[in-house]
Amino acid sequence: MYKRKIINDPVYGLIEIPYGIVFEVIEHPYFQRLRRVKQLGLSHYVYPGATHTRFEHVLGAMHLMTLAVASLRGKGVEISDDEELGVVLAILLHDVGHGPFSHTLERQFVEGSSHEVFTLLIMRELNVHFGGKLATCIAIFENRYPKKFLHQLVSSQLDMDRLDYLGRDSFYTGVSEGVVGADRIIKMLTLHNDQLAVEAKGIYSIENFLISRRLMYWQVYLHKTVLVSEKLLTHIVHRAKALVQSGRMLFATPALNFFLSRNFSALDVLNSDDSDGITDLVRNFAAIDDTDILSAIKVWASDEDRVLSFLSGALINRRFFRIEIQEHPFDEERVANLRIEWATKLGVDVDLAKYLVFTGSVSNHAYSIKSDQINILYKDGREVDVSKASDMFNISVLSRNVKKYYLSEPKL
Amino acid sequence: MYKRKIINDPVYGLIEIPYGIVFEVIEHPYFQRLRRVKQLGLSHYVYPGATHTRFEHVLGAMHLMTLAVASLRGKGVEISDDEELGVVLAILLHDVGHGPFSHTLERQFVEGSSHEVFTLLIMRELNVHFGGKLATCIAIFENRYPKKFLHQLVSSQLDMDRLDYLGRDSFYTGVSEGVVGADRIIKMLTLHNDQLAVEAKGIYSIENFLISRRLMYWQVYLHKTVLVSEKLLTHIVHRAKALVQSGRMLFATPALNFFLSRNFSALDVLNSDDSDGITDLVRNFAAIDDTDILSAIKVWASDEDRVLSFLSGALINRRFFRIEIQEHPFDEERVANLRIEWATKLGVDVDLAKYLVFTGSVSNHAYSIKSDQINILYKDGREVDVSKASDMFNISVLSRNVKKYYLSEPKL
Amino acid sequence: MYKRKIINDPVYGLIEIPYGIVFEVIEHPYFQRLRRVKQLGLSHYVYPGATHTRFEHVLGAMHLMTLAVASLRGKGVEISDDEELGVVLAILLHDVGHGPFSHTLERQFVEGSSHEVFTLLIMRELNVHFGGKLATCIAIFENRYPKKFLHQLVSSQLDMDRLDYLGRDSFYTGVSEGVVGADRIIKMLTLHNDQLAVEAKGIYSIENFLISRRLMYWQVYLHKTVLVSEKLLTHIVHRAKALVQSGRMLFATPALNFFLSRNFSALDVLNSDDSDGITDLVRNFAAIDDTDILSAIKVWASDEDRVLSFLSGALINRRFFRIEIQEHPFDEERVANLRIEWATKLGVDVDLAKYLVFTGSVSNHAYSIKSDQINILYKDGREVDVSKASDMFNISVLSRNVKKYYLSEPKL
Amino acid sequence: MYKRKIINDPVYGLIEIPYGIVFEVIEHPYFQRLRRVKQLGLSHYVYPGATHTRFEHVLGAMHLMTLAVASLRGKGVEISDDEELGVVLAILLHDVGHGPFSHTLERQFVEGSSHEVFTLLIMRELNVHFGGKLATCIAIFENRYPKKFLHQLVSSQLDMDRLDYLGRDSFYTGVSEGVVGADRIIKMLTLHNDQLAVEAKGIYSIENFLISRRLMYWQVYLHKTVLVSEKLLTHIVHRAKALVQSGRMLFATPALNFFLSRNFSALDVLNSDDSDGITDLVRNFAAIDDTDILSAIKVWASDEDRVLSFLSGALINRRFFRIEIQEHPFDEERVANLRIEWATKLGVDVDLAKYLVFTGSVSNHAYSIKSDQINILYKDGREVDVSKASDMFNISVLSRNVKKYYLSEPKL
Repeated sequence: MYKRKIINDPVYGLIEIPYGIVFEVIEHPYFQRLRRVKQLGLSHYVYPGATHTRFEHVLGAMHLMTLAVASLRGKGVEISDDEELGVVLAILLHDVGHGPFSHTLERQFVEGSSHEVFTLLIMRELNVHFGGKLATCIAIFENRYPKKFLHQLVSSQLDMDRLDYLGRDSFYTGVSEGVVGADRIIKMLTLHNDQLAVEAKGIYSIENFLISRRLMYWQVYLHKTVLVSEKLLTHIVHRAKALVQSGRMLFATPALNFFLSRNFSALDVLNSDDSDGITDLVRNFAAIDDTDILSAIKVWASDEDRVLSFLSGALINRRFFRIEIQEHPFDEERVANLRIEWATKLGVDVDLAKYLVFTGSVSNHAYSIKSDQINILYKDGREVDVSKASDMFNISVLSRNVKKYYLSEPKL
Repeated sequence: MYKRKIINDPVYGLIEIPYGIVFEVIEHPYFQRLRRVKQLGLSHYVYPGATHTRFEHVLGAMHLMTLAVASLRGKGVEISDDEELGVVLAILLHDVGHGPFSHTLERQFVEGSSHEVFTLLIMRELNVHFGGKLATCIAIFENRYPKKFLHQLVSSQLDMDRLDYLGRDSFYTGVSEGVVGADRIIKMLTLHNDQLAVEAKGIYSIENFLISRRLMYWQVYLHKTVLVSEKLLTHIVHRAKALVQSGRMLFATPALNFFLSRNFSALDVLNSDDSDGITDLVRNFAAIDDTDILSAIKVWASDEDRVLSFLSGALINRRFFRIEIQEHPFDEERVANLRIEWATKLGVDVDLAKYLVFTGSVSNHAYSIKSDQINILYKDGREVDVSKASDMFNISVLSRNVKKYYLSEPKL
Repeated sequence: MYKRKIINDPVYGLIEIPYGIVFEVIEHPYFQRLRRVKQLGLSHYVYPGATHTRFEHVLGAMHLMTLAVASLRGKGVEISDDEELGVVLAILLHDVGHGPFSHTLERQFVEGSSHEVFTLLIMRELNVHFGGKLATCIAIFENRYPKKFLHQLVSSQLDMDRLDYLGRDSFYTGVSEGVVGADRIIKMLTLHNDQLAVEAKGIYSIENFLISRRLMYWQVYLHKTVLVSEKLLTHIVHRAKALVQSGRMLFATPALNFFLSRNFSALDVLNSDDSDGITDLVRNFAAIDDTDILSAIKVWASDEDRVLSFLSGALINRRFFRIEIQEHPFDEERVANLRIEWATKLGVDVDLAKYLVFTGSVSNHAYSIKSDQINILYKDGREVDVSKASDMFNISVLSRNVKKYYLSEPKL
Repeated sequence: MYKRKIINDPVYGLIEIPYGIVFEVIEHPYFQRLRRVKQLGLSHYVYPGATHTRFEHVLGAMHLMTLAVASLRGKGVEISDDEELGVVLAILLHDVGHGPFSHTLERQFVEGSSHEVFTLLIMRELNVHFGGKLATCIAIFENRYPKKFLHQLVSSQLDMDRLDYLGRDSFYTGVSEGVVGADRIIKMLTLHNDQLAVEAKGIYSIENFLISRRLMYWQVYLHKTVLVSEKLLTHIVHRAKALVQSGRMLFATPALNFFLSRNFSALDVLNSDDSDGITDLVRNFAAIDDTDILSAIKVWASDEDRVLSFLSGALINRRFFRIEIQEHPFDEERVANLRIEWATKLGVDVDLAKYLVFTGSVSNHAYSIKSDQINILYKDGREVDVSKASDMFNISVLSRNVKKYYLSEPKL
């Protein structure tokens, strides 16, 4: 008898998890760690409901994947049981390399790298642990698997990852306009030349999906208060690393201390495979989550280092910095003057004022014509990129990279 | 003590109706008639849940209006109690002139006219009935009231009518992507030079609103099956009028018979004011609703007239016609040939084949730059049309009139 | 390739209808008629959103049935494809014999009978039409099929009918407390000795289901305003029948006239099988729906018969009668006096005053210990009736028949 | 102009927070700390969506309080502006004394005491900080304020606390049957003899509320897996205290260490007022939250103490203990034997096996006849306790204290 565990998901209702390898992967400590990593980093400072975790997100994405597989099979697409298992495991594990606060800190832990190097590293270790059962999963994840659409279901402009996170983040932030018709889009998915495509009648849902995604970006992910809180967090960790690496002892869990006291590159991580280092690196990574950072920051708020304590107190007690947004870069002289001003106020070296007064830019385009396209498939067999098929958008507008500049300084 | 009746609305939860004139207007038979007029005509043939009525819609729009008035007042906008009452009554009555099946048949009952002439006629009669208490309401409705924003709340590109119907139609059709953040948009409304404007941070909600509206148009209001069913309905009534006016007796309620046997122009209606005709016209109009039409059509499905019975049977039993959509007009010769073919099949005169084989076009633009603009108000006091303020749209795309042509013929 | 039509349901999202016999049954005019029969009769007078139809309800119940079949199969219960088809068709057709306004008028059309005799009659006719493909369906519906649990899924205290209508009615009335966890209950269903049972951990959901059902009864189905409006409707039809059968010609569609001018018993209906009568009876029944009644009542509101016009006007314009509720029968003398008073006021014979002043009772019990029980199945194999298993209820409380008496008279 | 900050709440939509003292209290670090305290402790181990915090809950309860005040005022109940502010602040602060993981650990931090002693202590300190502006709030909270119904709105069997948490917990766990019609219940609230009462027509909502509460208790709050995880957490902290107080140094934040190394009684807390101790006690309490505990437990999972590391590893990696539930106490001998068995397996002293093998009981009654009653107010002025007014319940059933016993031991 085919048994499944049933889990309650506020977004989709009851979700089924098949027993066997999928269930065992979920029970593994590396996976359970995702329970302690917030999906949206610090967005809950603006949207108090957004305390949901990576753990929930990947379960939701797994649920959508099973729907997509069933729908495609219903249309005659051949997907073997092994391929189904592979693509389900791939979506389940695609975020397993996320560090504390998801995207916010990823470059603080491994220079110049994204969470995906850790994902791959952990997948490989789990593959060993589970006796090679993740081989297809890894091939799909790395896009080495012959049926390319399986990779597209995991990672493309219309993958199950996005379908879940847009809907879920919309649900938990309460930004109801962000709602995406995931079930409708999934039913409209089809295959054309081994690539995912969307049936013609689904075009309005796709337009809506692209607009919702844009709305969520500007309203939530790049919300200026979220942005400034994430910058604070980054500066705190950056400052802590500097202090530790210059010899200070800071309160930290051993795993956090491991990362504060070392600098890694993505190459270090990927080459750690056959060295002794691997054990240490993965073990420490697997031990670190949001709570290590937050519990340390609360202690650091009373640290003797004026910069570290100032930033830490600001983050914990939500005394966020002022932020100014404009469409062109800020005047460098103004920034320099502000830094002098704040260095004086806080009595710190002017070199350190970059932690307090900082500028930068954020950008987003709703649709990328360079990455995997979203193709609309007409009944007559024509396949057209959505940016051309839509009578609403035109490609130049849609793929325009919107860039905004910000300047931030403490309040008061 | 200020008493209010509480009504359950599936969309907004509990709605409050103040006792007094508002309550009395709702209790009037002219208003109660809206319970028997479906909001979306025949859309329930495609979206079975869409059986909601004009009655619900106007109560919902009234609810949003009270929220809008409260929010504007909270921002310091002066709205007197009489003005509040006027604008609430205006939104409550703005659809009272809708005939059976809302928009579908309006031109069949009064040539070249919309439901608004009846709305005005009925408002005036109610004003007499209620001793002049609707004076402000009518002035606002006719845009004669000095504070122009009150009219805009009732009728503009961002009025309470649209905010309610988009959300409500989305709810009842189950097209979840159509969800509009009505409460958020209302909180973002402000006043600038006595015109409604939207605070700058509301721009993403407005973009989403425009896209949702577009989606609802193509996915619901202009859905090809809905379209073809509405054409069938129009042809049925048209054919019945022709038969009645040529002397046939058709089964019909007296009120329906009144309209089948006469041709009115909008001018006739508006000039009926002081003649004896008014009583008859309004009385008959107030007596007619969806049920007169449907009960007659069921009888007509067995009528001796081959065209009337064929169309009526098709509508009642949902044997809809085939419809073809394309982006340019259909070839006239092809249409002529099809008509000959179908006239032969059904054994009717070829002149009557226009009821069976027909072409036409539908069009929609998401945003009109000609009518009342939606203005975005920046903190520095600049006011910019949304089509220019948005970095997403550009005006040429946004206001582009999308036109589609269709050709329809019976199945089989 | 297994094709399915997808339909939008506001309650469950996307519903799939398999092509083939299921789809053909839905397309049949007898089934399409359900689009014109409101699920909740006149409840929309109190809950304006409750305009949903029998058509939606049976599609929803069909959806739950497919979930239940899939869940039971997943637990090892054997259900053949033919049995699945049978049970799906049975739930789809279980309400096909509902006349106008669902339950309200059923005894006016066929004396002493419920809609089920028509359901069976129509099922049989459809079985002939579809070449015997409904044989299993009918056997299940009539509880002649060996696997008794299939009938229980269609008709029992925990059938898919109830699970759908409670949730759906709760959704459309906006009575959010009525929400039933249909998906959870379905996943908890299991089989024990060929009877449906509920796994022990589902007991709280069952308790909640019984309480929700009770709440919906008193808050919606037996709401006093709904009750009085349904009594008005019954009296109108009763009076119209009396007039027609005494020789008056009343405005009515032919089908309505057919039923007004004749009295049927359930036996007449069931025995009409092999006579000529059947064609007429089923044909007329299949032609009648809410619109026949409403369009006639609007005309009757101006009828010369004082009782008919008074009642009809009251219903159409929602000038409902006053209703008084108490826990014991009303004093007969008081009723007699009120009747005399109202007969005088309206200038009608005192014999007719029973249409204007009337008493009666309503009753409901949350759970019947006499009909099919809801059994809770423990892990140790014990099976206990929910009324005994629950530590909340005790059987005497739960199955207590709550009876309330009402007295109604016109207002003013 | 009356300005309000708008916050998105997934449960209620947009919530308004008035600027001024209410806003300042929310911005205070003591209040912000609630962002780091999960509302449902470890329930997210069973219901992954339940990661919401005390912060959200109190904002939601504040929102309901403003609705309740407005509704009561609309019925003529006099509530002054100062009283409104007081009751709003009281509900906002009623949970400010919750320690890490809400209820789970409260007895570990202060012996024999609930979170309310800290709540009061912090309210008093905030009152000093805000120059006495919390005087009315504290009087209401302590039930010293003359208008007793204000206290009832904050704390009674039908207070805004319960209305919010039942609805919110139902939302985030996805246990949809737990939905409570908070808005409807609030509109039904009225006053009788200065006590809150519920209008008679609200009785079905109250019944549903009591049943929902019961369902949430057994399905969520006392779910056996939640229970066992909370016991693990309690044992971990208990063991850590024992170790620290016997001289071991354990990894911990300074604030956590403060509580691990000392034993407080409720009396100590309340008497700390005028001593020097207060500063330390409140300061440390205000510094501690879920993250201190979790980050420490992750480190303790590798501790040399076999009991501490075993329990810590089990909690972090969700290797929960087996739990057995029955309706009578467990056999003592069996428990003793199990303890010997597990002490041997883990190689620890048998005295420590109580951490590994443990029994206990949980109980819940749906309604307490001893505490504040919920009174139903009839139109004739009679006021009846809901347990007597309901024809559903009888008091003996309703207030029956359901007790269940459990026995727990490690798996494997």
